[in-house]
Amino acid sequence: MSPPGTGLVDHLRSLLPLPDHTELRESVIPTLIESIAGIAKVLQESHQVSQVGTANAFGDDQLNVDVFSEKLIRSAIANCPSVVAASSEEDPVERATEPRKTTSSGERYAIAFDPLDGSSIIAPNWTVGTIIGIWEGTTALGQAPASKQIAAILGVYGPRTTAIVALRVPGSTPTIFEVALSADVPLIVFTVRSEVKLAPPPYATRYFAPANLRAAADDERYMGLITHYIKEKYTLRYSGGLVPDVIHMLVKGHGVYVSPVVGGKGAKLRRLYELCPIALIIECAGGRAVDPVDGTDILSRAVENEDERGGLLCGNADEVEFVIKSLVG
Amino acid sequence: MSPPGTGLVDHLRSLLPLPDHTELRESVIPTLIESIAGIAKVLQESHQVSQVGTANAFGDDQLNVDVFSEKLIRSAIANCPSVVAASSEEDPVERATEPRKTTSSGERYAIAFDPLDGSSIIAPNWTVGTIIGIWEGTTALGQAPASKQIAAILGVYGPRTTAIVALRVPGSTPTIFEVALSADVPLIVFTVRSEVKLAPPPYATRYFAPANLRAAADDERYMGLITHYIKEKYTLRYSGGLVPDVIHMLVKGHGVYVSPVVGGKGAKLRRLYELCPIALIIECAGGRAVDPVDGTDILSRAVENEDERGGLLCGNADEVEFVIKSLVG
Repeated sequence: MSPPGTGLVDHLRSLLPLPDHTELRESVIPTLIESIAGIAKVLQESHQVSQVGTANAFGDDQLNVDVFSEKLIRSAIANCPSVVAASSEEDPVERATEPRKTTSSGERYAIAFDPLDGSSIIAPNWTVGTIIGIWEGTTALGQAPASKQIAAILGVYGPRTTAIVALRVPGSTPTIFEVALSADVPLIVFTVRSEVKLAPPPYATRYFAPANLRAAADDERYMGLITHYIKEKYTLRYSGGLVPDVIHMLVKGHGVYVSPVVGGKGAKLRRLYELCPIALIIECAGGRAVDPVDGTDILSRAVENEDERGGLLCGNADEVEFVIKSLVG
Repeated sequence: MSPPGTGLVDHLRSLLPLPDHTELRESVIPTLIESIAGIAKVLQESHQVSQVGTANAFGDDQLNVDVFSEKLIRSAIANCPSVVAASSEEDPVERATEPRKTTSSGERYAIAFDPLDGSSIIAPNWTVGTIIGIWEGTTALGQAPASKQIAAILGVYGPRTTAIVALRVPGSTPTIFEVALSADVPLIVFTVRSEVKLAPPPYATRYFAPANLRAAADDERYMGLITHYIKEKYTLRYSGGLVPDVIHMLVKGHGVYVSPVVGGKGAKLRRLYELCPIALIIECAGGRAVDPVDGTDILSRAVENEDERGGLLCGNADEVEFVIKSLVG
């Protein structure tokens, strides 16, 4: 662990030494990490988690903490001159940021984010998270995700506040690291692990997280997969929050998350706000993230509009291969 | 929600108006709640969750945060003159507290606690908790739990810090309520819900939490029960932490937690530090908590020694009935 005071920016400079992503490392990522610390603070003080009585554009019930989280990230974005476009699950129309930005660097980024993922488990005080994708250029739409989504951040709000940062910037080595954020102001960012990696087989303990488990009632293949995990004595961990479920596999070094689409149902995860950033995180950690319908990589297909949705299979590469064989054939 | 500043002690006075439990309401419970706030603070700042390299008396790996949590609760106990004996999962030998206490009230309590439950999910930053049972008299051992364990507290460390307090004091109406703790000093305790109740059927959403799921590989009845939940489209939520899994059902108003003993294996939960306090909480919320081996109430049998262990079925009464029929016959 870095000693207190060792800055996130120093760490990012060592990972992105070239001048062509100066604003990314000096402004965009540090400012977004600061907004994650701000969301953590709001959640700590949100003793009554109530619904505001409005619905977001997808018709979900919106919680007051969702609204605060959205505002904090929008405010962070407004402070980054190189971020020229943004959209979120709470306001899912990509627009140029106001006021129009000017930067001398020539760097231009578009941000796509889910400010607070895991609404259903906020009331029982389970760990929830923020998901952010950073795209090179003026839009996240119609771009090749594998090369244009150059960074992703997961903010994790649990007993402490942590974040995972994945970078896959052209010309630099892909990397993924974990930081912890101090609870108090001024914010101190500690690098907890400079490299986050899913382990190679054989595994000491194997974990599975079966989302949309009800679908197994109508799908023999999914039921067969669940039976396989039980018979093979995998350990069950399933919070129902995408961020904690993914963080669990990253920290333990093993896991397989299965959110299948069965009979056309189950494609619940937003490609732009959830699937693409999570897929970059998993790939940078050495794993695979694929579409459960056809087994293709999540990042192999552009996001054409903000409401596109899908299922997800992700985790250690050999585990994902096995699920593809079991569910896709 | 009570306005900030409305004290926990005022709330306890309204619930326990008689003078025979003055120290319980004015000293013991408020002091233990304060120690929970202290543990939350330690967890927030524990950026590197490392193992101290020692093992506790049961041979589990001990984490540094376990050690801090144990110390904070022991220190709280030392400040309560009416607490005359204590033991914990980290130091599981019940002893008289030192220095020997003297109180004029005549009240005497023994405390049994698990300072930090959920070691396996601390590293991935999932919600964890503290479990405390408060027993009337000078010992928790050899007593009738249903009448002598008069209070239980669950501390919940997630995005915010919450606690559940259950009281079943002879002469007063049994009650259970939820509080939220401020992140900053001085501690402010908010009453979030003055009554925590499992809902009656029919249920809007049904949840299940299958612990020790690997056991289903060797037990047709447990596998049949899991298949039943899937076919009936119950929603899976299983964190692997007893406190978050129980809090989930209390907040949602529905849930069934199944930790069976199969082939003599699976009796992992300590009766004194985990099962008895959890059972009081569940019963005060209107549910049932039973032994999966014979379907008897957890609280129907005295704890004779600190290391006694068992499985657990708990949740809404009709759900627990169904599991007893399925697993015990």
